[in-house]
Amino acid sequence: MAKMWGGRFEGEMDERMWRFNASVDVDRRLALVDVQGSVAYARALGRAGVLTEEEVEEIVAGLEAVAKEFRAGTFTYQPSDEDIHTAVERRLGEMIGPLAGKLHTGRSRNDQVATDVRLYILEEAAAMGRALREAQEAIVAVAAAHLDVLMPGYTHLQPAQPVRFSHWLLSFFWMLQRDRERLRDLAERAAQCPLGAGALAGNAYGVDREALAEELGFRGPTENSMDAVSDRDAVLEMLSWGAILGTHLSRLAEDLILWSSAEFGFVRLDERYTTGSSIMPQKRNPDSLELVRGKAGRLVGNLTRLLVTTKGLPSTYDKDLQEDKEPLFDTLDTLDDLLAIVAGVIETIEVRPERMRAALDDAMLATDLADYMVKRGIPFREAHGLVGQVVRACEEAGVGLRALPLERYRAISPVFDEDLYSALDFEASVEARDVTGGPARTAVEAQLEKARAALGT
Amino acid sequence: MAKMWGGRFEGEMDERMWRFNASVDVDRRLALVDVQGSVAYARALGRAGVLTEEEVEEIVAGLEAVAKEFRAGTFTYQPSDEDIHTAVERRLGEMIGPLAGKLHTGRSRNDQVATDVRLYILEEAAAMGRALREAQEAIVAVAAAHLDVLMPGYTHLQPAQPVRFSHWLLSFFWMLQRDRERLRDLAERAAQCPLGAGALAGNAYGVDREALAEELGFRGPTENSMDAVSDRDAVLEMLSWGAILGTHLSRLAEDLILWSSAEFGFVRLDERYTTGSSIMPQKRNPDSLELVRGKAGRLVGNLTRLLVTTKGLPSTYDKDLQEDKEPLFDTLDTLDDLLAIVAGVIETIEVRPERMRAALDDAMLATDLADYMVKRGIPFREAHGLVGQVVRACEEAGVGLRALPLERYRAISPVFDEDLYSALDFEASVEARDVTGGPARTAVEAQLEKARAALGT
Amino acid sequence: MAKMWGGRFEGEMDERMWRFNASVDVDRRLALVDVQGSVAYARALGRAGVLTEEEVEEIVAGLEAVAKEFRAGTFTYQPSDEDIHTAVERRLGEMIGPLAGKLHTGRSRNDQVATDVRLYILEEAAAMGRALREAQEAIVAVAAAHLDVLMPGYTHLQPAQPVRFSHWLLSFFWMLQRDRERLRDLAERAAQCPLGAGALAGNAYGVDREALAEELGFRGPTENSMDAVSDRDAVLEMLSWGAILGTHLSRLAEDLILWSSAEFGFVRLDERYTTGSSIMPQKRNPDSLELVRGKAGRLVGNLTRLLVTTKGLPSTYDKDLQEDKEPLFDTLDTLDDLLAIVAGVIETIEVRPERMRAALDDAMLATDLADYMVKRGIPFREAHGLVGQVVRACEEAGVGLRALPLERYRAISPVFDEDLYSALDFEASVEARDVTGGPARTAVEAQLEKARAALGT
Amino acid sequence: MAKMWGGRFEGEMDERMWRFNASVDVDRRLALVDVQGSVAYARALGRAGVLTEEEVEEIVAGLEAVAKEFRAGTFTYQPSDEDIHTAVERRLGEMIGPLAGKLHTGRSRNDQVATDVRLYILEEAAAMGRALREAQEAIVAVAAAHLDVLMPGYTHLQPAQPVRFSHWLLSFFWMLQRDRERLRDLAERAAQCPLGAGALAGNAYGVDREALAEELGFRGPTENSMDAVSDRDAVLEMLSWGAILGTHLSRLAEDLILWSSAEFGFVRLDERYTTGSSIMPQKRNPDSLELVRGKAGRLVGNLTRLLVTTKGLPSTYDKDLQEDKEPLFDTLDTLDDLLAIVAGVIETIEVRPERMRAALDDAMLATDLADYMVKRGIPFREAHGLVGQVVRACEEAGVGLRALPLERYRAISPVFDEDLYSALDFEASVEARDVTGGPARTAVEAQLEKARAALGT
Repeated sequence: MAKMWGGRFEGEMDERMWRFNASVDVDRRLALVDVQGSVAYARALGRAGVLTEEEVEEIVAGLEAVAKEFRAGTFTYQPSDEDIHTAVERRLGEMIGPLAGKLHTGRSRNDQVATDVRLYILEEAAAMGRALREAQEAIVAVAAAHLDVLMPGYTHLQPAQPVRFSHWLLSFFWMLQRDRERLRDLAERAAQCPLGAGALAGNAYGVDREALAEELGFRGPTENSMDAVSDRDAVLEMLSWGAILGTHLSRLAEDLILWSSAEFGFVRLDERYTTGSSIMPQKRNPDSLELVRGKAGRLVGNLTRLLVTTKGLPSTYDKDLQEDKEPLFDTLDTLDDLLAIVAGVIETIEVRPERMRAALDDAMLATDLADYMVKRGIPFREAHGLVGQVVRACEEAGVGLRALPLERYRAISPVFDEDLYSALDFEASVEARDVTGGPARTAVEAQLEKARAALGT
Repeated sequence: MAKMWGGRFEGEMDERMWRFNASVDVDRRLALVDVQGSVAYARALGRAGVLTEEEVEEIVAGLEAVAKEFRAGTFTYQPSDEDIHTAVERRLGEMIGPLAGKLHTGRSRNDQVATDVRLYILEEAAAMGRALREAQEAIVAVAAAHLDVLMPGYTHLQPAQPVRFSHWLLSFFWMLQRDRERLRDLAERAAQCPLGAGALAGNAYGVDREALAEELGFRGPTENSMDAVSDRDAVLEMLSWGAILGTHLSRLAEDLILWSSAEFGFVRLDERYTTGSSIMPQKRNPDSLELVRGKAGRLVGNLTRLLVTTKGLPSTYDKDLQEDKEPLFDTLDTLDDLLAIVAGVIETIEVRPERMRAALDDAMLATDLADYMVKRGIPFREAHGLVGQVVRACEEAGVGLRALPLERYRAISPVFDEDLYSALDFEASVEARDVTGGPARTAVEAQLEKARAALGT
Repeated sequence: MAKMWGGRFEGEMDERMWRFNASVDVDRRLALVDVQGSVAYARALGRAGVLTEEEVEEIVAGLEAVAKEFRAGTFTYQPSDEDIHTAVERRLGEMIGPLAGKLHTGRSRNDQVATDVRLYILEEAAAMGRALREAQEAIVAVAAAHLDVLMPGYTHLQPAQPVRFSHWLLSFFWMLQRDRERLRDLAERAAQCPLGAGALAGNAYGVDREALAEELGFRGPTENSMDAVSDRDAVLEMLSWGAILGTHLSRLAEDLILWSSAEFGFVRLDERYTTGSSIMPQKRNPDSLELVRGKAGRLVGNLTRLLVTTKGLPSTYDKDLQEDKEPLFDTLDTLDDLLAIVAGVIETIEVRPERMRAALDDAMLATDLADYMVKRGIPFREAHGLVGQVVRACEEAGVGLRALPLERYRAISPVFDEDLYSALDFEASVEARDVTGGPARTAVEAQLEKARAALGT
Repeated sequence: MAKMWGGRFEGEMDERMWRFNASVDVDRRLALVDVQGSVAYARALGRAGVLTEEEVEEIVAGLEAVAKEFRAGTFTYQPSDEDIHTAVERRLGEMIGPLAGKLHTGRSRNDQVATDVRLYILEEAAAMGRALREAQEAIVAVAAAHLDVLMPGYTHLQPAQPVRFSHWLLSFFWMLQRDRERLRDLAERAAQCPLGAGALAGNAYGVDREALAEELGFRGPTENSMDAVSDRDAVLEMLSWGAILGTHLSRLAEDLILWSSAEFGFVRLDERYTTGSSIMPQKRNPDSLELVRGKAGRLVGNLTRLLVTTKGLPSTYDKDLQEDKEPLFDTLDTLDDLLAIVAGVIETIEVRPERMRAALDDAMLATDLADYMVKRGIPFREAHGLVGQVVRACEEAGVGLRALPLERYRAISPVFDEDLYSALDFEASVEARDVTGGPARTAVEAQLEKARAALGT
């Protein structure tokens, strides 16, 4: 292999070692941002007087020709291409001759790859933001379309209090909203340009790093060259962001898997997002959501992976850091799929209000019964205990709260009166909770408005 | 045990189950923020007309008396105290009687604990910010005091190019600066108040959640009650922040462990931060830094732990979420130690300029030699190859770059001339790299200025 | 502090550093095994001629007195006790005078702690084996008591085929059985004695390591002193074992949480293992099982933690390794609880056969219908497709498989005949699957036999 | 897409969902074991009377023709191939017609894939065992070739006591030996055959599972069909094994990276395993070892990944489990590389005895000095303190232990005499430690013998 860095070496690298060491199969995804960084660097060398104007133009034209090949899918990798940077430089040399050898003046692959990865992250953060927004839009649309459907709200997966289906669905809107805010923050922080940091010790050619950063769309240059070449915080933040988002999606998936079970039956997934069984002809399985849930593991694994790799590394660049790109790409690819699948599942879901209504059980109004007592002067903690006795009486009698006779109520507390039965109403229970962020109709409408505002729609 | 929620239950909990379920040994650390939240909630119930003014005052006074016991260390826990919330409510009842039973009106432990944890996070984020700043100040002070010490810069732990010791040390300043920025972002996002979300379905007593949020110092209330009681993003972000910070500290520790080895010898740790051996009388071991490095594992483990726990949970509150507090507390305690130890190690470190200077090897000027050729018109890539041959010639001759005779140089390239030897100077090499973020004196001075500005000092 | 290793040091350790460095709050749990190791080491020194017989006896008597204090809870730690080893040595000195100073001859805390941890692991492995067995016994008892209860078997949480409840429950027996086998293997591997490895370079006093190992109940001594003092494989294996076991228990918990939901209703947890709500008087929550599920996170976190810590450590003992004990102890404590809680939940569970039976749906017999066709010569893949059409016809008609008229069947395939209806029977479906490991009565009976044999009961 | 399970479905799957759901890009690696399992299953159906002898033969011949295509690389996947199982069944159908449709009788992809994965694990465990052994052989060869080279032994990366280089290198032999033993154990446990477990409820065609297991080389059939289709313990064990092995290799890499640094200089890596720099012509970087160290992250990440995915899954097969194969394959591929690279690095390493010898410092004999005192009746703990004073005296005088005058020694303790200087010898120090597992020549020779015995060479 014609190694870019081969001058001082006598022999060949071990062949297996060559493959082990090479990263081009992975980092080729950075092809276009690598060219973009090189174009900016050529111009910076021009401004610094290292290259003439003509040289800059020739190099930039060459790089654009290389980029064209990448875009057209006609770029041919050679076995000697160790990584995307050497592949681009090699091809540029084929196109414009020895002048290509001037492009790397004062630049190292260390600052180059750090810049590439950040450019890539900024691009992908924008794309991920759009994907998140699409999932959020699906949530808003379906919540709005089913505003008034009541369903059991659960804690500990036990029936707790009635809520609106729309309210439940919107709870995921806000998780994704936080994910979108985190994404914005991390992209902001990632927008510092390492180019000009060299191998570790900066650039001896007087390159204007502020101008370089600006040209590439960064907020400014990084502040310390030794940090710049080994900092992988932006990748770690992205992986951490992905892992947290993954847990949100896994929770949504869990809910919908439960609710599309025969026993709950609150929703039906569209056929487009279910699969059958190779042996049981009746099956319609929520594979889409199970994969959404399962892939949270992959997202957490990607984060763990890079945390382990960066732990305890000596200063500046170590080759260990080459391991940063696979988890980054995998997390982004995975989330691109997950968000689209989740949006698709939600958009096409069949809501079954009658099954939700049927699952509303009198006992879910026990808190309302306690509220009834509180309004009649009983301290809440005492009311809670008395309603507990009512619930026990109901269980013993095998009836619901609404069917327990008044005398049984009054045997427990004289505060109970005929009007207690009118307090035992699912709709009334939900409407009573009209605080900000509550399930009452007006509160959910207000929530929808805020959601739309957050989307800028 | 007198269970707060015991009304509907006939018998006792299994005793082992009671201990397994109880969290008071862990969540007692929330005692003061729990009282703080209860005071605000009492006032909100007052504003909503649920409590009279007198009742509010009595409850608030009682709560303050409880807080006083916590502060004085005189609060006595009872075996029946399931968690900090029931402990406080129990004690309040002992103090003010049945009126205490009104405090929980419309409130659940679900919104209560979510509020407590956020109040705690906001407090701790401020404390962690201070601890970070102290470590950064130590870095700035030591860097400024050793501005002109040259040392080898490494990549791949191989000598690369000369840099300033101060530049190396400041590279960690910027890692901690990013950690401080992340901390600010996460605290900002955590500052939403869950109180009023109830068990999951909001509050039926018309509590003003905006006012509640404001009184407790939050930006505003959370937007969805079902999300509010199960959202642990703020904890996950804190754990993720801690894990990333842990990798930074582990890298600093690794560098200093290496540099305080006999073979490097660049620094000596102060006795106050080293220990001896039970068997080898000569030993002086960098235990402080080894623990800093090792505890990165703990910080990553804490993050993994909660990611696993939250994965795939059904909607709203599940008891699994009780597992959020131990990793949170442990990460905060660990970092409190780590940052103080790191600051102490840096403040007391003995820098050994003569050992650093002795480790500067001619070969670290190879890039400068290539730069010399570039300035004489050789494309960088070609210069790199030719210098590679020079290096090989030096190795064969067993001499350094400065000792290789001119004719050997000229045999490799006629571009070499007598003046090449003046290019081979460590100081000159460093000073040539005067770009933003570079190791040259002026660049490091500018960097120090920015660091001080970032600290507001 | 009077440091055991203080000879060459001039000053004091930083006070925070002292606390940061000290491990006695954690490793005091090793007190008894530490004494046990010291007794054996004293005898080994005697055999090697380093101590006289009288000295050995005096030291051993002293150590036994120290052990007595630990057992009685009267041992008093001093602020200067850095770790359990120095605490024991300090106390021994108080009891027997300067002779205590001979005990550490040729021994280092490095081989001492490695030995302590292994002795502890061997003890705990036995205890964990008993706890596993108790959970398995609960499973066998409940399975045997409900042998004939039919229930829906699920894949993808969708009804799949009828199975026996006992068969479902026994599926967890085999998971725990593998956990028990893994435990046996890891204990076997852990049973190598590091004592005599010194700090890293072995023992210069001719101690007989084979005899030492035998006296302490090990299989033999470790083979390399440098490996011996830094090997933490036994701990990693224990943590890995715990993490895998944790996932098994989390799956059992998930099943039972689902099944004790109102919608499934297959089981009811005993009151002893449920809790109530602070706000909703009707609630009976499966907190026990939620904690079992949630604590899987802790077990995985403990494993991750030590893997991160050991990654990339330089040879032999580094202080980072002190971080091995907390995750080990936490995993063992956690599992001790989890296994007892799981056993308790199972032993007291109320099985509700009528709810299980009611959940059996005709569609779960679709595979039996395909089998019916196969027995009449239709290739399975074709039969699968045709039954798929039957299922669709049923859905369109809103009836179950048993209610679809014969002519509709025959319209799909002429192979169907009157006798098809007798194939559509849940009991028959289960009994048809009488292979090894299948749900048929005889197969489950055989399975129970094997389970009992595995328990040796 | 012509879905194998499409009978009951009306429409098409969403196209993105199809790609999201399909696993053939990953599981095609199971092609040959899938065919192997199908051949055995066809024979089992024959023995059970479901297929005639002719049918069995035709199917087996067809399957072997399919296998031939895989081996020759001529198998063509179709867009409709959802996974490797459907791909094989589809191709078999093209070759032998509708008879292919009988192969899946009573079999589900659930038991099929579980069987495939285990067959694969058994194959790979054997291959991994060979790769481990090759690395161990390299260690033994290099250790034997440099038996007498002395070097500093370190603890806390500080010079501790002199040891043999061979002893250090052999310390890694025993780590790999434990890895090999763990591998054997996990393979043994994995060798249970799930085939015949069906989708979850076993097999209704009377297939002889014992015979099936035997034919496929398993120890026997799995004991419970519901466990069998969802058990991923064998994969988890493999991933856990890989993570632990990864930490071992990362430690070896760390040592060699340090030792090939300019400052240590104990070894030089062969050119075949180093690379250069794109900007610094003199560099020779240990990229091979840095990747070995860094990839520990990947191995830990793979383990975390599947632990997260399996946590809290409902009973039997869920699609989440499809995520098991990528981490398994990645761990095996990674370790295949790592072990070969490590073996290559060791086999070609240049040992530099003179640099090691030069790094031996008098202070490393302090323990020997204490031993000298012990032999003259001073209790070890007292001797340790006195030698600490000697060390301090040496540091103040700026001399080594051997250069400190006798009167200075005697001022510290009268026990010192002229013969103390002869105790201060590196060779003697090493030779004094001749216990089992120690660094003395005879002990290392014995260790080499045991190592060879463990390899069976």
